[in-house]
Amino acid sequence: MSRVVFVNGKYLPYEESKVHVEDRGYQFADGVYEVFAVIENKLADYESHMNRLTRSLSELNIKLPYSKKSIFFHVSNIVEQNLIKNGLIYLQISRGVASRDFKYPSNVKSSLVIIGKNIPFEQYSDSFNKGINVSTTKDLRWKRVDIKSLNLLAPVLAKQSAYKKNCQESWLIDDEDFITEGSSSNAWIYLDDTLITRPVSNSILKGITRSTLIRGLKKRKIKYRESKFNLEDIKKASEAFITSATQHVMPVVMVDNIKIGKGVPGPRAQDFKAAYMESLKLTEL
Amino acid sequence: MSRVVFVNGKYLPYEESKVHVEDRGYQFADGVYEVFAVIENKLADYESHMNRLTRSLSELNIKLPYSKKSIFFHVSNIVEQNLIKNGLIYLQISRGVASRDFKYPSNVKSSLVIIGKNIPFEQYSDSFNKGINVSTTKDLRWKRVDIKSLNLLAPVLAKQSAYKKNCQESWLIDDEDFITEGSSSNAWIYLDDTLITRPVSNSILKGITRSTLIRGLKKRKIKYRESKFNLEDIKKASEAFITSATQHVMPVVMVDNIKIGKGVPGPRAQDFKAAYMESLKLTEL
Repeated sequence: MSRVVFVNGKYLPYEESKVHVEDRGYQFADGVYEVFAVIENKLADYESHMNRLTRSLSELNIKLPYSKKSIFFHVSNIVEQNLIKNGLIYLQISRGVASRDFKYPSNVKSSLVIIGKNIPFEQYSDSFNKGINVSTTKDLRWKRVDIKSLNLLAPVLAKQSAYKKNCQESWLIDDEDFITEGSSSNAWIYLDDTLITRPVSNSILKGITRSTLIRGLKKRKIKYRESKFNLEDIKKASEAFITSATQHVMPVVMVDNIKIGKGVPGPRAQDFKAAYMESLKLTEL
Repeated sequence: MSRVVFVNGKYLPYEESKVHVEDRGYQFADGVYEVFAVIENKLADYESHMNRLTRSLSELNIKLPYSKKSIFFHVSNIVEQNLIKNGLIYLQISRGVASRDFKYPSNVKSSLVIIGKNIPFEQYSDSFNKGINVSTTKDLRWKRVDIKSLNLLAPVLAKQSAYKKNCQESWLIDDEDFITEGSSSNAWIYLDDTLITRPVSNSILKGITRSTLIRGLKKRKIKYRESKFNLEDIKKASEAFITSATQHVMPVVMVDNIKIGKGVPGPRAQDFKAAYMESLKLTEL
């Protein structure tokens, strides 16, 4: 069965899923997006993702092109028509199509694309059992990464630099040598029996998985702290993790040349993953 | 006559000019561009623009999808088929189409879009005679603006903030309160009989118009200096300008609430414009 993509009101075969060359998403990165997991045919933390999407849109003065109800309907269709049991939904909204000019065009309808992708759950389990390697690089991003926008060239370069070093993620380092976050995930270390992640600000994206994990940690009474950390702290950490919608809670076993703990996922990894999974809200289609 | 756009090897009517939703230009701002002026059916500083394009591509490890000779052929066709006497060519190259993943895909052909636009020369002359207003805003851009990439959301927000204040351009202010450049132009002030613009670094784009103007200033033995300047310097300036491929040399008559000189284009504006125009290289189609 061929894949189907939602593009501005139409369900199109993947190969024919196209947008105009003057869509501002293509010329200016002028748009926002969300990625949410599909787990056993259900949408993971859908409402939280849609709330963050609404916030990103509002920061850029872009209007939703359809009602939230319609969008939920189309998301559900994409999950069903692409037979996604486990995988992800990528949803992108850009400001719309207009003759190229930096300033906002008037009277333009925003563009909506919804893409679904199957990812067997075993792929996540395999990575979880092995843990991932992380390399660090300078945080070159713009100053509003709290908006989940298409302005992603710096994370692309960061991720590529990680892959060239046989790492699966890159942690970004700010001007004061603290880790901000991963190129597409939040960063955590486990130090002195406390799970630590950077506090939210304009320097990081407020991860939905991050928030859900924090709810889970509270429920399980696991100690956590929101504070900045650097490479010296990482050296002392007994475990480390990334969180993201598709990586859930993923153990990190190496950062640059620093082996974390024994260089394999640590004893608390299962607890933290469970804390996340039990706090996740699953929405039926 | 309807407009024609070059899209990945095809000449398409403007309305049907589309790219795939998973073109990395659309999802990651993973691409570069150039804008060059068409003046009396000739291409302005074409070779310099193509050299900068090549440099931008090389910084991102993107390959040219066609030979330079083919690209010149297609650019010429777009000028001719769209009957552009005066106007601009917008040329964009992105990394190509691939299933969404931050790291570079392998074996992907980069995408090329060439759009032409007519702009009557009188439009420039009118602006030149009145001069433009500039407002300032914080420079929120990423740290590799020396690459002319699609990562343009910060300049979009800056330009929009200017338009809301009835200004035509925004000057960006760095963490040390110096002007870096305009949201889509380089910034200049004329102070103590010297034309001043910021030196090139990763904090500004090396403008082609900027370089051509500098050549012209040298020829005319007009004093200029490459150094940083701030709002205090702007207050003391007798004239100010922006330079860009489509704005050429454009007088600035107001910056925030600071009137420049008498609030109208100053006595040297014509000289500086002439210095630019006579150093420009025009390429016949």
